Amino acid sequence: MTPQRVTLITLGVHDLPRARAFYAALGWSPAEEADGISFYQMNGLVLGVFGLQALAADQGRPDATLGTGAMTLAQNFSTEAEVDTAFELAMSAGATALKRPEKVFWGGYSGYYADPDGHVWEVAMNPFWPLADDGSLTLPEGE
Amino acid sequence: MTPQRVTLITLGVHDLPRARAFYAALGWSPAEEADGISFYQMNGLVLGVFGLQALAADQGRPDATLGTGAMTLAQNFSTEAEVDTAFELAMSAGATALKRPEKVFWGGYSGYYADPDGHVWEVAMNPFWPLADDGSLTLPEGE
Repeated sequence: MTPQRVTLITLGVHDLPRARAFYAALGWSPAEEADGISFYQMNGLVLGVFGLQALAADQGRPDATLGTGAMTLAQNFSTEAEVDTAFELAMSAGATALKRPEKVFWGGYSGYYADPDGHVWEVAMNPFWPLADDGSLTLPEGE
Repeated sequence: MTPQRVTLITLGVHDLPRARAFYAALGWSPAEEADGISFYQMNGLVLGVFGLQALAADQGRPDATLGTGAMTLAQNFSTEAEVDTAFELAMSAGATALKRPEKVFWGGYSGYYADPDGHVWEVAMNPFWPLADDGSLTLPEGE
């Protein structure tokens, strides 16, 4: 079997300086920044921001048109207020609102925004999924 | 600032039974499976597999056509042999090869495949990024 593991998430972007400015406006600092790529340390994994065409070439299909939206990233928080704060900060950083945070049918509180390249982020509070102190998420037993 | 955190990755899929079968063929077991969604425990975060239209609706734009490819997920391994094994297992599970694993210019070894819905996975060995025993990745200091 393949380990159930994600160690790196890469976002392909049209305009790297614009993407770097967006994530800087969220308060994020790259741990490593090279010509053409930035890496951010997340909770036990890394987020990379990389040119869209370079990513297509790296995938072995330089002429592919790569799309966004069908894979989303969520940040879970412990309170609705933290969700609202994260959403508002993204708005002030230039994100596009998809759905403002609201109470949702599964018992939590969730909103969605898109970054300047259309990468979709969810900000959510799920009362059934408590976060560890380090911000990591382990699913509760027995569901 | 917003914490540098990803707690949930969601893949929107056209055919949920097909997606579940693909990830089962990688040897993955869902920790939680409900009508219309499966959740897999990863390294301190969760991977969800969810209907594509349901995901668009959840994003607040039920009529959107969601695309794949511009956000990729990587699994890092400690050896080239592990990369090859993971790639071959994905092939036998029905993935589409994008780039067979090969030595790459940055000094590592990397390949890419797409799952049945076009979600892109990289399998890689990066000698400059050692993994922790639990499979998590923390960027080295001072780069």
